[in-house]
Amino acid sequence: MERTYTLTISCPDRVGIVAKVSNFLAMYGGWITEANHHSDLQAQRFFMRHEIRADSLPFDLDAFRTAFTPIAREYEMEWDITDSEIKKQVVLMCSKEAHCMVDLLHRWQSGELDCDIPLVISNHEDLRDLVEWHGIRYERVSVTPDNKPEAYARIEQLIDEVNADCVVLARYMQIIPPTLCQKYAHRIINIHHSFLPSFAGAKPYHQAWERGVKLIGATCHYVTEELDAGPIIDQDTVRVNHRHVASDMVRLGRDVEKAVLARGLAWHLQDRVLVYGNKTVVFN
Amino acid sequence: MERTYTLTISCPDRVGIVAKVSNFLAMYGGWITEANHHSDLQAQRFFMRHEIRADSLPFDLDAFRTAFTPIAREYEMEWDITDSEIKKQVVLMCSKEAHCMVDLLHRWQSGELDCDIPLVISNHEDLRDLVEWHGIRYERVSVTPDNKPEAYARIEQLIDEVNADCVVLARYMQIIPPTLCQKYAHRIINIHHSFLPSFAGAKPYHQAWERGVKLIGATCHYVTEELDAGPIIDQDTVRVNHRHVASDMVRLGRDVEKAVLARGLAWHLQDRVLVYGNKTVVFN
Amino acid sequence: MERTYTLTISCPDRVGIVAKVSNFLAMYGGWITEANHHSDLQAQRFFMRHEIRADSLPFDLDAFRTAFTPIAREYEMEWDITDSEIKKQVVLMCSKEAHCMVDLLHRWQSGELDCDIPLVISNHEDLRDLVEWHGIRYERVSVTPDNKPEAYARIEQLIDEVNADCVVLARYMQIIPPTLCQKYAHRIINIHHSFLPSFAGAKPYHQAWERGVKLIGATCHYVTEELDAGPIIDQDTVRVNHRHVASDMVRLGRDVEKAVLARGLAWHLQDRVLVYGNKTVVFN
Amino acid sequence: MERTYTLTISCPDRVGIVAKVSNFLAMYGGWITEANHHSDLQAQRFFMRHEIRADSLPFDLDAFRTAFTPIAREYEMEWDITDSEIKKQVVLMCSKEAHCMVDLLHRWQSGELDCDIPLVISNHEDLRDLVEWHGIRYERVSVTPDNKPEAYARIEQLIDEVNADCVVLARYMQIIPPTLCQKYAHRIINIHHSFLPSFAGAKPYHQAWERGVKLIGATCHYVTEELDAGPIIDQDTVRVNHRHVASDMVRLGRDVEKAVLARGLAWHLQDRVLVYGNKTVVFN
Repeated sequence: MERTYTLTISCPDRVGIVAKVSNFLAMYGGWITEANHHSDLQAQRFFMRHEIRADSLPFDLDAFRTAFTPIAREYEMEWDITDSEIKKQVVLMCSKEAHCMVDLLHRWQSGELDCDIPLVISNHEDLRDLVEWHGIRYERVSVTPDNKPEAYARIEQLIDEVNADCVVLARYMQIIPPTLCQKYAHRIINIHHSFLPSFAGAKPYHQAWERGVKLIGATCHYVTEELDAGPIIDQDTVRVNHRHVASDMVRLGRDVEKAVLARGLAWHLQDRVLVYGNKTVVFN
Repeated sequence: MERTYTLTISCPDRVGIVAKVSNFLAMYGGWITEANHHSDLQAQRFFMRHEIRADSLPFDLDAFRTAFTPIAREYEMEWDITDSEIKKQVVLMCSKEAHCMVDLLHRWQSGELDCDIPLVISNHEDLRDLVEWHGIRYERVSVTPDNKPEAYARIEQLIDEVNADCVVLARYMQIIPPTLCQKYAHRIINIHHSFLPSFAGAKPYHQAWERGVKLIGATCHYVTEELDAGPIIDQDTVRVNHRHVASDMVRLGRDVEKAVLARGLAWHLQDRVLVYGNKTVVFN
Repeated sequence: MERTYTLTISCPDRVGIVAKVSNFLAMYGGWITEANHHSDLQAQRFFMRHEIRADSLPFDLDAFRTAFTPIAREYEMEWDITDSEIKKQVVLMCSKEAHCMVDLLHRWQSGELDCDIPLVISNHEDLRDLVEWHGIRYERVSVTPDNKPEAYARIEQLIDEVNADCVVLARYMQIIPPTLCQKYAHRIINIHHSFLPSFAGAKPYHQAWERGVKLIGATCHYVTEELDAGPIIDQDTVRVNHRHVASDMVRLGRDVEKAVLARGLAWHLQDRVLVYGNKTVVFN
Repeated sequence: MERTYTLTISCPDRVGIVAKVSNFLAMYGGWITEANHHSDLQAQRFFMRHEIRADSLPFDLDAFRTAFTPIAREYEMEWDITDSEIKKQVVLMCSKEAHCMVDLLHRWQSGELDCDIPLVISNHEDLRDLVEWHGIRYERVSVTPDNKPEAYARIEQLIDEVNADCVVLARYMQIIPPTLCQKYAHRIINIHHSFLPSFAGAKPYHQAWERGVKLIGATCHYVTEELDAGPIIDQDTVRVNHRHVASDMVRLGRDVEKAVLARGLAWHLQDRVLVYGNKTVVFN
């Protein structure tokens, strides 16, 4: 895999942004391997993502930042640049359900998910063996109705300790407190087991069965303070019929959950997801 | 196409139902071309559909009914038998949007939808030419905030006049009054332009765009008094992304609406849809 | 709908192309509403498409061409610029099967397909009424084993007479002679009723049934001299099972054919399809 | 999970089969929890599958066989009855690729795949740790151009030693010799990494990339002597585009392979797959 820099930009839309940025890159000989733009006409906002071969630029990231900052200021950009050789630090959080964890850990082990996983946090012991077999540290933090403040203080400490760039709730099944949602805004990814906004909250497959829907789904989204209402990264559905009871939906849904979470996380790790308001631009 | 009788049964579940019915059919030499069963374990209810070659039975429908009634009584069956040579009478209702009408009328004209369409009712003139080109009677009944009782009395009269077996709301966009919903229970089919239960009510594509979903959908359901809450016959979804504004969703959604409505109606016409509570068993 | 210019470029890949083109556009105040790039690393070729608001440029197309030509020469570009107000002239060719024609004509009539359709050519009379009801000229040119050269000379004459930009074989079911394939290279679009390369040639649904596949499909492609082997624009599939005989596959396949052809044609009309070798880049 | 017997029947089609079988079951009080029928009109053959609650019958399997044999003879049935409490013995064969193995082993471990896995055979060491972590015996049998007869004799011996009901080639990547294909006819399941019949043989994703297809797929089928030509159990596809090179197709294809193989195997284990000629009836 080539070493690449990834430049992401979100700014008010106006004429000449693309020219300014591509001039800047061309001036230094930047070899662009992928470029994506999006204008949101309603929000009058412009989104942009470039992958550039690192060896084509005479820069390290700091020098890039210095050189690019005047342009970013001129165009009021929110922007970032990342280096494919600096892996993102991802903390996984789980409960007792194994399917998403098995899937993510295998994708990580096989090199498909390009990140480090320094830590898994769970409120149960069930998945310790699985996680430790992959050579990953496993910390159990019990969360009970009585110990929430202490438990989430400990979780926050653990997340900070490993300098996590991103936290993945891989069927964690607990509600994250608002302070954490704010602190790690757009960095906590959840998989909800329904096609949101249908069936938010508890037991979505049972709700789906009660309603008699003919498709069930899953939704990967950033966690916000409002439950199951954050910006959606990806969704998918699978067909069900009258023969499927709620437990069949649970089983079929697991495959959709795995697929949607793995896609959403991969896009996040590749800086393909830009958030604006309560929506995402996904350059995939 | 072979002439067939279709026998549909819904009854409390118990041992021996299949044997009883298949014995009855075998005794008279009935050649079953398709058979479907379903046990709803929770509702303890049994559903069954048989297609039988008409020429294999020594019966017309009346004689069949006479012979079968004792069995039906013994097992407390809700049941029906239909003859493929007696086409169902379908009334289409529409507004200004043409896509579902073009689709249904072509499927009907090409023989794919096996029914008669004696009448189209609309509150506008827009689709008169299209409908009349297909040789079908077109009645405009304006519905305004002031004339609803009279308008729906007229609509009811028209539906009854043609002895409609089924009414299809092909993007009719008006709310059907409760008395009609009850009178034609499980015989009025609507297409809603969202993946219910998400985005019930008005402007679902705009709601979908606001929420930033990554799939949009359509739902074919029987109309009940509660808006967009009736038993679902079929649903489907299509992928959207950040580049799609609400008008793109409208355009992409049209294809899903057409497909889902056409499937749902075809299944209804073939007596493949059995309703129980607020759910459907679809033997497709 | 805004008036836009669409600029498409295909050229050898090297550093600075994007900068050069976006500088050019920015210099003249060009407001880019959509931009897409693609580098084919293996072919070392670069593909680019811009939509620009026409009123943001101080140019008509001729002046644009004059101003851009030096850049195009420097970078050895194959390129084109089109104006959304100059509609493409599309000739449809059909046989007896109506479904693709009904679908395309309705999409055209409702404004979804942005083109003129000055002419339909068919080797049969079956669809004359349908076509003429849409106000479109219908020319029958019988093609028999004995009259092929004369028939296709007549067809070529008709196509040229209306200055067709594009010819669509909407289930035309005849093999186009090599001279026409070459003359209108990358401008004749066919819908093949299988998931190519499976089941090229005649009776693909029967071939699919014989093989016992569990999905059937359709393929929209540019016509080349080699039958069913041209560059693929789009494909899709639908699920079948053991209960579906070949005639059911024909019925289910029609919906896939319609959808895939309509998508492929829409992309072609919007200059979203760039051909290189035997493949397409589709900026959708 | 209820203990059930599963009765599968394939026989020449004639009037009265369903009545005969359901009478037999009703006579003994058999509680049918799922029933499926299929008439292949062309082959004039009838297929049937019943799930019956074991505790509703006054039989063990031997007594059932004795009682049912006269009926089976009369109707020239090929038939079988299985007991949900007698788990099928499944041997997995793999090479170096882990994704299908990780997926199947997790589904097995979590109880989703209802079988025993007494043995995994591989021609490499790569997956030994994974397999043994699941507590399953791992035998490496190297297959080289020089040792094929001895290697497959050893493999046959191993398969027989554990009384395998079924062998799964989970990306085994070697061609099974004809004698084994015959000996375990309809009991060896392969996953092929293309949408057959397209791209049979080696490197299907590279073939797909060369052809420029817009969907790639996977096919689960029974292994026969002719390579990649056996009866298809299930298939699925996933969308690709011009940005995907062959290695991306490999990555995306892995998810389809896993899903299709897991479904096909689950259906096989539940006796839902009946083979006739080179096709399958799948009662799912």
